[in-house]
Amino acid sequence: MGNLTRQALELYIVTDRILSLGRPLTEIVRAAVEGGATMVQLREKECDTRQFIELGRTIHALTHAAGIPLIINDRADIALAVGAEGLHIGQHDMAYADARRIMGPEAIIGLSVENEEQAQECLSLSGLDYIGASPVFSTPTKTDTAPALGLDGLRNIRHRVGPEMPVVAIGGINLSNIRDVIRAGADGAAVVSAICSAASPAGATAELLSAVKEAKR
Amino acid sequence: MGNLTRQALELYIVTDRILSLGRPLTEIVRAAVEGGATMVQLREKECDTRQFIELGRTIHALTHAAGIPLIINDRADIALAVGAEGLHIGQHDMAYADARRIMGPEAIIGLSVENEEQAQECLSLSGLDYIGASPVFSTPTKTDTAPALGLDGLRNIRHRVGPEMPVVAIGGINLSNIRDVIRAGADGAAVVSAICSAASPAGATAELLSAVKEAKR
Repeated sequence: MGNLTRQALELYIVTDRILSLGRPLTEIVRAAVEGGATMVQLREKECDTRQFIELGRTIHALTHAAGIPLIINDRADIALAVGAEGLHIGQHDMAYADARRIMGPEAIIGLSVENEEQAQECLSLSGLDYIGASPVFSTPTKTDTAPALGLDGLRNIRHRVGPEMPVVAIGGINLSNIRDVIRAGADGAAVVSAICSAASPAGATAELLSAVKEAKR
Repeated sequence: MGNLTRQALELYIVTDRILSLGRPLTEIVRAAVEGGATMVQLREKECDTRQFIELGRTIHALTHAAGIPLIINDRADIALAVGAEGLHIGQHDMAYADARRIMGPEAIIGLSVENEEQAQECLSLSGLDYIGASPVFSTPTKTDTAPALGLDGLRNIRHRVGPEMPVVAIGGINLSNIRDVIRAGADGAAVVSAICSAASPAGATAELLSAVKEAKR
């Protein structure tokens, strides 16, 4: 099990090249880190392995300097090459047991769950660091997602896994609903378009983080 | 450095889903192994990580039973999850030093080179198991390849790296030219369409292997 704090889940930016609207990912991540992002996930589905590693190293320099974890989506090879702090896997990615074996005991590993049954299964995964409840709201970011959980679905997942399991909510989260997902039981929110597509990613990040902290008070 | 024998390079089948003409990859590999293939490379560019691992495990059971190495193209994460014997990387994949670090000292690692300069650089890569001279002939298999080396280019690469470096030729190799690539200095040939698209992949493999052995006599 990795060295993940609950605080690191509070505002988790997930990159998306298309939703960054032509701006370099490094610029978006730099701004989000300045705005107070607590964790960064690099998600790339199209670029080749060498480019992915180069990008990962550049972004890791930013997150490392800020003292926040970098998590790579899906690709354990990239995470290992870059020296990222962790790996995020979905239901179509590597099985958790394989990921833990390859990444080692110190890595942060998170797993997306799309329903209560998958959340329940996570309780048997030794050392799993967090689950990502996905998608809470419908989202244009990914086209292959399960039906939206809604706030009730998120509450049910929190209930099912109990208070010990760190839970981050993802999918369609923005300034208008981020307080609701925290109040529904998430430790934090993973945000894609509300940061990547923002006119000011740093400003958007700061506002979202304030809202999380407000909802936790 | 992995436990690669020169003999294992003699007839190296590289999978291609499209060139398998609708037949399952496992069927093609099973036939190639029956026909005497000496090594198998699994190359997948589209399928998701979980499917890739499942396919890799199925194919690894076939190669393991036959006592021949399974090499995964590009994806060290898949190679590690499957327990494959090695990794093949190209110039747009992970750097060799990263691959060796991640895969460990026992893994077989091969690297594609597209010209003499890249072949020369391989001499400084400690523990590199083989180079793939690519493409020897023009090929419909990959659309992103460098200009064909031709038999002269292959001879020049062999001359440049010296007799100690195992060299496999790849690109457009079939029964009509496989003897020529061996005589030009390759230890073996990596074959895609001449096996994957053959009416009888087992028969094609057996014929190609006979031709390699004949050219080596």
